Amino acid sequence: MKIRSLLLILLLALPLSISAQERQRARELGIEPGILTPGPYNAITDVAGVSVGHTTLVVGDSIRTGVTVIRPHGGNIFQEKVPAAVFVGNGFGKAIGFTQVEELGNIETPIALTNTLNAFLVANALMDYTLQTPGNESVRSVNPVVGETNDGWLNHIRGRHVKQEHVFKALENAQTGIVAEGNVGAGTGTRALGFKGGIGTASRVLPEDKGGYTVGVLVQTNFGGILQINGAPVGREMNNFYMAEDVPYVVDGSCMMIIATDAPLSPRNLKRLAKRSFLAFGRVGAFSSNGSGDYSIAFSTHKDRRIPYTAASIERTVKEVGNDFMSPLFLAVVEATEEAIYNSLFMAEDMQGQDGRIMKALPIEQTLKILDQYKARKQE
Amino acid sequence: MKIRSLLLILLLALPLSISAQERQRARELGIEPGILTPGPYNAITDVAGVSVGHTTLVVGDSIRTGVTVIRPHGGNIFQEKVPAAVFVGNGFGKAIGFTQVEELGNIETPIALTNTLNAFLVANALMDYTLQTPGNESVRSVNPVVGETNDGWLNHIRGRHVKQEHVFKALENAQTGIVAEGNVGAGTGTRALGFKGGIGTASRVLPEDKGGYTVGVLVQTNFGGILQINGAPVGREMNNFYMAEDVPYVVDGSCMMIIATDAPLSPRNLKRLAKRSFLAFGRVGAFSSNGSGDYSIAFSTHKDRRIPYTAASIERTVKEVGNDFMSPLFLAVVEATEEAIYNSLFMAEDMQGQDGRIMKALPIEQTLKILDQYKARKQE
Amino acid sequence: MKIRSLLLILLLALPLSISAQERQRARELGIEPGILTPGPYNAITDVAGVSVGHTTLVVGDSIRTGVTVIRPHGGNIFQEKVPAAVFVGNGFGKAIGFTQVEELGNIETPIALTNTLNAFLVANALMDYTLQTPGNESVRSVNPVVGETNDGWLNHIRGRHVKQEHVFKALENAQTGIVAEGNVGAGTGTRALGFKGGIGTASRVLPEDKGGYTVGVLVQTNFGGILQINGAPVGREMNNFYMAEDVPYVVDGSCMMIIATDAPLSPRNLKRLAKRSFLAFGRVGAFSSNGSGDYSIAFSTHKDRRIPYTAASIERTVKEVGNDFMSPLFLAVVEATEEAIYNSLFMAEDMQGQDGRIMKALPIEQTLKILDQYKARKQE
Amino acid sequence: MKIRSLLLILLLALPLSISAQERQRARELGIEPGILTPGPYNAITDVAGVSVGHTTLVVGDSIRTGVTVIRPHGGNIFQEKVPAAVFVGNGFGKAIGFTQVEELGNIETPIALTNTLNAFLVANALMDYTLQTPGNESVRSVNPVVGETNDGWLNHIRGRHVKQEHVFKALENAQTGIVAEGNVGAGTGTRALGFKGGIGTASRVLPEDKGGYTVGVLVQTNFGGILQINGAPVGREMNNFYMAEDVPYVVDGSCMMIIATDAPLSPRNLKRLAKRSFLAFGRVGAFSSNGSGDYSIAFSTHKDRRIPYTAASIERTVKEVGNDFMSPLFLAVVEATEEAIYNSLFMAEDMQGQDGRIMKALPIEQTLKILDQYKARKQE
Repeated sequence: MKIRSLLLILLLALPLSISAQERQRARELGIEPGILTPGPYNAITDVAGVSVGHTTLVVGDSIRTGVTVIRPHGGNIFQEKVPAAVFVGNGFGKAIGFTQVEELGNIETPIALTNTLNAFLVANALMDYTLQTPGNESVRSVNPVVGETNDGWLNHIRGRHVKQEHVFKALENAQTGIVAEGNVGAGTGTRALGFKGGIGTASRVLPEDKGGYTVGVLVQTNFGGILQINGAPVGREMNNFYMAEDVPYVVDGSCMMIIATDAPLSPRNLKRLAKRSFLAFGRVGAFSSNGSGDYSIAFSTHKDRRIPYTAASIERTVKEVGNDFMSPLFLAVVEATEEAIYNSLFMAEDMQGQDGRIMKALPIEQTLKILDQYKARKQE
Repeated sequence: MKIRSLLLILLLALPLSISAQERQRARELGIEPGILTPGPYNAITDVAGVSVGHTTLVVGDSIRTGVTVIRPHGGNIFQEKVPAAVFVGNGFGKAIGFTQVEELGNIETPIALTNTLNAFLVANALMDYTLQTPGNESVRSVNPVVGETNDGWLNHIRGRHVKQEHVFKALENAQTGIVAEGNVGAGTGTRALGFKGGIGTASRVLPEDKGGYTVGVLVQTNFGGILQINGAPVGREMNNFYMAEDVPYVVDGSCMMIIATDAPLSPRNLKRLAKRSFLAFGRVGAFSSNGSGDYSIAFSTHKDRRIPYTAASIERTVKEVGNDFMSPLFLAVVEATEEAIYNSLFMAEDMQGQDGRIMKALPIEQTLKILDQYKARKQE
Repeated sequence: MKIRSLLLILLLALPLSISAQERQRARELGIEPGILTPGPYNAITDVAGVSVGHTTLVVGDSIRTGVTVIRPHGGNIFQEKVPAAVFVGNGFGKAIGFTQVEELGNIETPIALTNTLNAFLVANALMDYTLQTPGNESVRSVNPVVGETNDGWLNHIRGRHVKQEHVFKALENAQTGIVAEGNVGAGTGTRALGFKGGIGTASRVLPEDKGGYTVGVLVQTNFGGILQINGAPVGREMNNFYMAEDVPYVVDGSCMMIIATDAPLSPRNLKRLAKRSFLAFGRVGAFSSNGSGDYSIAFSTHKDRRIPYTAASIERTVKEVGNDFMSPLFLAVVEATEEAIYNSLFMAEDMQGQDGRIMKALPIEQTLKILDQYKARKQE
Repeated sequence: MKIRSLLLILLLALPLSISAQERQRARELGIEPGILTPGPYNAITDVAGVSVGHTTLVVGDSIRTGVTVIRPHGGNIFQEKVPAAVFVGNGFGKAIGFTQVEELGNIETPIALTNTLNAFLVANALMDYTLQTPGNESVRSVNPVVGETNDGWLNHIRGRHVKQEHVFKALENAQTGIVAEGNVGAGTGTRALGFKGGIGTASRVLPEDKGGYTVGVLVQTNFGGILQINGAPVGREMNNFYMAEDVPYVVDGSCMMIIATDAPLSPRNLKRLAKRSFLAFGRVGAFSSNGSGDYSIAFSTHKDRRIPYTAASIERTVKEVGNDFMSPLFLAVVEATEEAIYNSLFMAEDMQGQDGRIMKALPIEQTLKILDQYKARKQE
């Protein structure tokens, strides 16, 4: 027990993304889905103020899990809530906090992602965090927002190894700028589309005449289908897909999709945004199987839309993008989600977990060859 | 055929509410449900700008139907849409326009109420009206909002006697101020809670420190249950209720509830408002039976929330009441809906319809006696 | 710390409902809302196989909370799931497990109720329980269903005093037959409609020609409004209601409503059932205020509708009640929920909690006097 | 006026699909999206008993519209309803009948598709049809199900040229077997993805060990995006896509998706099926723009799930596919919807309409060349 703790501490002290850096993101390999332009980091953190933190647990033979947090802004989120909405693509999952987000149209904690059986402990830790945050001394109701996917093939999930300290660590580590992807945080032990899944992120920036807004997406991929990358039938070419003969393919799993934007959107239009992320499933060859918990959460960071815990007056004045101008934002969500899913695959590496099981990462060389055959990436 | 047309024209030329005026509204009889104060008309028209128009069809032995329209404001609603939301209490009904209201958060035509089998012709007429309205010459998509209840016991419903002209007439007749109730418009042939139903309306005004907003409700009552008036078990005392032994009581039917407010509400909070009207069912002794189409539509008339058909810019600035200040509005909806339902019963008179069927109105004397026994009305 | 543990153990060893037994249930006092007949226990346990367990935490000056569990049947619920549905009256709450119930149409754990800040620890404990249940050794995904209300006025809620052991204890203690009500389990520290709230239950049995089904409801009451009992305006007569002048009335709070039936219902019709429980709010004088988390969960215990974890074949054959026969069940839910709320008030006693705060129970004598004035109870 | 009627009659007497037959379906051109096998007709009519009828209105210079009906079975659908569900991808549309389908879980009329402004007249005609059907003499409530898309660019939509007779004709013409596609019925005047849209259909048959069920889809395409065919970026290669510079591309429009299956599905699982059709949008390069009314309707034809208008008893026994076996059906829907959309494009021909506007069909030669470049079709 003590040794484990020591190992954990050592692990947490290490830079999280060393191994992940050896692989390249989809765009670095010439894969450029869609027609819109990514932001500088091509990450959810391109939405100003958004930060991401991971705690990665790779301990011993069988702990392969973690937690990833997304902070909508750097302040006290409970005191300055942000407008938000949720969409349930397929509700076979333990997503937490959704009914209140739907009702009140906001989130009041950072969003945390983790494994299925840890969802409640992580929600409790988010609550701990909120209760302990200076300024929240009198708070007696908190709605933590948590998503999860099931990493129980590689990870000893029944052990619920993600503890309060790991959530706090991820919250403290959260940073703007570059986001570690692949086998990190809540993506440490996941599988997707026949390969090692993980965390992925991407973004799109609209042209100025469409509002100039940024949309960023972060995904935790753990679902199945018939992998298609930028139109190329990679899964079929590799004979690694749902229903492929004589292949022990597991289609179930889940996908969490977190969408941030700086556009001043009402919760109603944020819900429409969230719904579009589901369409990226079609693009990557997924179909939201029965056992998949596919959930989207969208929030706006626009300053004018923040909701103070203590309202100054009955009425307030807010900015909002009109319905007629939503289409470019919808397109941005589809594209960024698609690319974020690819990034989760390209950045993940082979992972060995419990019972000696090994999940292979997407084989880069072979994949690029297929992509080239199908002209699915930029010619260098 | 010609004679019928002539009769119709004569009828339409008559003041609609002569007979209804002989009865009194609930409050005039000392029935004052709730704790909030009604507006000057105790009607949906207390919300400034809202107008109501009826066309009542009582022709020959078997035509007992009509149309009622509610106009959110006096202008071109298509060009100046108002924020709106819907709630489905029980969806056994042909309500029209709901998916678009839910998606876009607004209504772009007046709301029309009619009988079940006329819903589509009335929707088409609303569309005619919108297409013909000056300024709408290039419009090629209109989302008419129509509600209905089934008056097929008294009315020869299969004849679909409500025509375009009747809808137009109701639109032209629409007025602010006093609203005719009882056997008028879409309430002409309805039944409710064992008695003749009809159109009813009521309103509530919030104290200034709660925002000073007005909430108005108009109902088309045609549903069953165990009638309770301001707490008194009127239905049971009269042995006229669902499941009463040896009573040919029909529980099915429907209720349309239209809610207007001048509070600057987002569609999300309008939806919450709409949902509360459903609670009035509990107060009057109804339970939303399987065959009941119980729908609510709420809209805000606040000038700052109007949505121009042609937007001037991507972003706009709107006022909105914060979540924390919604409770008084919720209470206002419940109270106004309850009283509007009572008004529909108290103002309706006996009606004879097809096949010689007679639906008796709530017997005033007997009812007041029961109310007095149960101390359910103000002592005079 | 040790002393507290000792106290807890002592407490848990005591019969839970001693004090509650000194008060009487609504029906014992002549209050008989509705027209249908209760079952033998007038409790959710009238639905065969359903059991209820409480763990009540009244420790020191400031711990006034607990947990209540409802077991749909006596077996391994994960292995034999029951069809279920949820309805969100007002989603300001931390209800857990709802998206999966909505998607899959079943529940796979007992339902637990507790306080707001303990919801996640209790969900985790339900998960512990399920993972530890013999036969579930290979289970790696569990959807605990938890509801909560906020007892943070009387209870030191930030301390999250409900632990795994208390959940387990409640599960072990769960029994069929008489259900303890009032200040027990999750109702220990709640307030409702201006008085001490708590746990309440009631049931209705349909006539044989309506199917002969039983509907049972259990509520955790913690919400506000203008109390009305069986039609009598008790809140107003006592000048204890929302918006009453010079009264420090707190309207916010929540209500959890659990509905069980032995009718073979599809999840779709269970959802309709759940929705009707919301109508009882209208009957008791509530309006689902902004801050109220009002949730309903309905399940069927019918043997033919149980869903084995491991399906034997692609298709299965199930019984279901047709839409046309649902109305009596809807009425039963409204009535049973109304009476369960009354029971929660009548059975609760005065409670002193943190900071010396005292919440007075509904004063019986005064209440009965008012009820008699309004003829709202059976003349003895 | 008379001449027009004459022309119409002549037109209706002609075989509807003469011109369409000159083009080929996607699969005939080697385009085989997905991994599952189509049924014999590769059409919604592969689901036994389902029939489709069109009335195509191409009259004079500016009438380019029509109506398409889908009949779930050959009998009296009102008397033998079929289980059904709806999903709203984006609710900017006038879909009719949805709230009742959602509530009751069935449809009781054929489904009709038409243009936006004709939706209500067509609904009324479906009602006429139902009321006139032998056996329905006493029917006084009908829930017609109608979908629409806006063909107002090619078609003089404000004229509402689809009349009752055209709906009746389509109902009479409805046949099993081959389904006419392209510029027929409700697809006569539509545009999709930068080209002439129309009606398309496709199907999938599951392997026996997955249940052997058939899933058929019929679409009315009228929406925008960045066209992708079986992974190949056709829209971009042709510089004909949303946001393409200097291209007058209209993204708004709508898509109606009708899904039939012979699997015995509950309305809950039919809703999940309906939701998956939305994923096909991702595959073809669409993103459900703000102005798109994207709706899905799914129904089951399984004999054991039919719902008689007059129920014989309170309980009935039905078959249902368990949740765990739904995934192959989900995949089938995505694939069939994708291919149906392609068929609508491949089968549509150039169309000239009002104001001399011309909408070009997908240019086959150029398209195939692109598909070959991207290896997106079978090598011949």
